[in-house]
Amino acid sequence: MENHLLIVSRSAEKYAQLIRQARLPSLNILPFESSVMTGEDFKSANIILGEPNLIRDILPELPSLKWVQSTWAGVETLLGPGLRQDYHLTNVRGVFGRLMTEYVIGYLLFIERLMLQKIQAQQISRWDNTPPGTLYGKTLGLLGVGSIGSEIAKTAHHFGMNVLGFTLGSESSQYVDRYFHPPYENEFASLVDYLVVVLPITKKTYHLVDKDFLGSLPGGAILINVGRGSLIDDQALITSAKSGHLKACILDVFQEEPLSEGHPFWKIPNLFITYHTAALSYPEDIAPVFIKNYLLFFNDQPLLNNVNFLKGY
Amino acid sequence: MENHLLIVSRSAEKYAQLIRQARLPSLNILPFESSVMTGEDFKSANIILGEPNLIRDILPELPSLKWVQSTWAGVETLLGPGLRQDYHLTNVRGVFGRLMTEYVIGYLLFIERLMLQKIQAQQISRWDNTPPGTLYGKTLGLLGVGSIGSEIAKTAHHFGMNVLGFTLGSESSQYVDRYFHPPYENEFASLVDYLVVVLPITKKTYHLVDKDFLGSLPGGAILINVGRGSLIDDQALITSAKSGHLKACILDVFQEEPLSEGHPFWKIPNLFITYHTAALSYPEDIAPVFIKNYLLFFNDQPLLNNVNFLKGY
Repeated sequence: MENHLLIVSRSAEKYAQLIRQARLPSLNILPFESSVMTGEDFKSANIILGEPNLIRDILPELPSLKWVQSTWAGVETLLGPGLRQDYHLTNVRGVFGRLMTEYVIGYLLFIERLMLQKIQAQQISRWDNTPPGTLYGKTLGLLGVGSIGSEIAKTAHHFGMNVLGFTLGSESSQYVDRYFHPPYENEFASLVDYLVVVLPITKKTYHLVDKDFLGSLPGGAILINVGRGSLIDDQALITSAKSGHLKACILDVFQEEPLSEGHPFWKIPNLFITYHTAALSYPEDIAPVFIKNYLLFFNDQPLLNNVNFLKGY
Repeated sequence: MENHLLIVSRSAEKYAQLIRQARLPSLNILPFESSVMTGEDFKSANIILGEPNLIRDILPELPSLKWVQSTWAGVETLLGPGLRQDYHLTNVRGVFGRLMTEYVIGYLLFIERLMLQKIQAQQISRWDNTPPGTLYGKTLGLLGVGSIGSEIAKTAHHFGMNVLGFTLGSESSQYVDRYFHPPYENEFASLVDYLVVVLPITKKTYHLVDKDFLGSLPGGAILINVGRGSLIDDQALITSAKSGHLKACILDVFQEEPLSEGHPFWKIPNLFITYHTAALSYPEDIAPVFIKNYLLFFNDQPLLNNVNFLKGY
């Protein structure tokens, strides 16, 4: 049986090129025009590859749909109430960990090594030899330990950090020194120098980082959010950052993106915005995930990185 | 026989406290006043612990001198022409690697992840999702591979970089993928994305990074100097940075420190000054080196980290 793949991505052409090179059996790639207009092609498409926010719009118009391969890790857009769940949904795991790790280590060092202060001193030709800080011996707390969290934990260990993990129940990473589970959010928070939020967003994780949680962090903690904006209560975060209770916040994700012009985040001096670029989906990284999964699909084998519609990740 | 230790350091009191706690045999720590004035104590001191630039001044006044333990890695101040060489000189190795590594990785990520650009966008509330770069797959060239270079190489490998090393002849680090030796400076330079200068300064290494060497680096290379200022020809560096041939320079060390007010380095936008703070000597890290060496000294065993007066390191 011939499979019909529709690519719904801003990088559709690049994906098509990479997938064609793999010469996959019985795979017809539908013309790109399909991704912007309704047509006969929609009817035949049984496989979709692409970005969840673009896929969501065409989800009701795909009578033959069997499988959606997301090019992102976060697929909450496809899990909203009333959306169909009569297909296999797979996401991408294992490719963002490396980029996320560079991001987390880079920004922790940016703060610890006083990089901005050193640049400001240079601007006024002032010799500023204030001793910088170090990662070594610090405690990094991961709020969420999936494949990304596990990679961050491994590198944190490499730099001599202690690693704590908070999860709903799983304890799968060998690089986490100690796990915490509900209802011990605040105990976990009280022990970390660096908090890295890397959870998916679900009903259970919405606003998990609230006023209480932030208040439990030790004074001078650094917070990094590479998960989703709504994991954190923005108002509580603003208070905590402005008061100096948090030494610094580095935020990659937001409840609305792009951030609106008047949002208070723009103007908080110890809050750094990184515009959802912590770990971009590069077709060169994602296409191999699709190719591997397609061969499983073709052979009626279970797919990799299946998303559980009930759990939400 | 009683040994008499004179501590010549801005952290003398902290060193004395840490060394006393070790309860070393037959060791008398001379009063601190000795370190600022000539006196009877100078006559008895046979061991000096401290900073090379302070030790240099009192070197001629120490008739009983047997051993100097530097608190720094770089001891060129004690190797100038006309200075005595009738004692054992040891420096510190193996403790700066960790801090230097954090510095190098931190600043490479600072550049690759466009951190300054992202901050500047935030200042004008502009959503700047320009894709950042990555360390993965890049080639890091170490100009000098001693204990510090070797630690940097190990972490560079952890981040998926290729590592090249340029040394006079030694090939001791397992984390260097390929070694180069004189006269292949320029071939080495032509192959690196990141150049990390971590050599000691000697007659052979003075201005090793000159116009030719810089010209051999690929366009867009990043240069980091944590060795000594005079390893690099400043004029050539200024030209190379200003032309954009180098994407960025991060300089921790300078021919004169502090840098004079009118020095051109202050005002070059892609040149970042870090005020000789890349790896500071913390007494908690250095005292154990002295203590270990003292026990060897006391037992007439060869000392660790001996500096060869002829080689200059």
